[in-house]
Amino acid sequence: MPDPCTIDVRILEHPVEVVTIEPFPPRAGAECVFLGRTRGDVHPRHGTLARLSYHAYVPLARRTLDELAEHAAEKFQCQVVRIHHAVGEVPVGAASVLVQVVCGHRAKAFEACRFLIDRLKATAPIWKQELWTDGTTWSEGTPVLPEGDAS
Amino acid sequence: MPDPCTIDVRILEHPVEVVTIEPFPPRAGAECVFLGRTRGDVHPRHGTLARLSYHAYVPLARRTLDELAEHAAEKFQCQVVRIHHAVGEVPVGAASVLVQVVCGHRAKAFEACRFLIDRLKATAPIWKQELWTDGTTWSEGTPVLPEGDAS
Repeated sequence: MPDPCTIDVRILEHPVEVVTIEPFPPRAGAECVFLGRTRGDVHPRHGTLARLSYHAYVPLARRTLDELAEHAAEKFQCQVVRIHHAVGEVPVGAASVLVQVVCGHRAKAFEACRFLIDRLKATAPIWKQELWTDGTTWSEGTPVLPEGDAS
Repeated sequence: MPDPCTIDVRILEHPVEVVTIEPFPPRAGAECVFLGRTRGDVHPRHGTLARLSYHAYVPLARRTLDELAEHAAEKFQCQVVRIHHAVGEVPVGAASVLVQVVCGHRAKAFEACRFLIDRLKATAPIWKQELWTDGTTWSEGTPVLPEGDAS
């Protein structure tokens, strides 16, 4: 009988941060965390990136992340799965996404964390707009663009 | 010309924690963190684990971790590599080791973090003693046991 998993999925209206897991599950020994942060890219025509702006259809994004967390929890025998994602503006250096996983041992913790961020990027209905010093673009490769918003 | 890497290696006389990287390197977008925590194992003869006790020959452990951090920084083009390792007692749930890596993108951040913890476990001259409710053992698979200390 595997230990139960605590799942904590949130869509937040501000940048995200690592949150200490307390109390830590006593039968777990490994914690793996991923933070995706706004990188200060330079665009050939639009200048330097000031911030990203994330847009989501929250009920669907929430459900997608919940299902993803439950899937990973079972697949990798996780004891904690946390996914926090920001909507709204995230300046350079701040984090838009946190994936935090606790497992018995490190191999599964790394695998689960990587699986979650890869799947999240591929499937979550969250769109990214790039706000440069001189212009705005929508990120390529987003699953869908909200109608009328594509640049 | 790759960005320079900030390396932060410490052997600490208390459990370790994630430390926010500030300022975050502006050209980095991915942060991967691993925390190894004391797991509340149960021994068939010695009862439940109360805490682990880590012992190191500090100058050599320090040098080993420094070299490992420099190697990973170059191999994976890291912008930050942090390795903090505790010596002394680490109770169940607390962390004995922190590996924190910042890279441009997530693939390299995950690879570097996993590489560092795997190599650290295999090569660092740090020994682990298990303090059970009823007895003490030395962990198997440690590189060397300090003379006269093996149980």
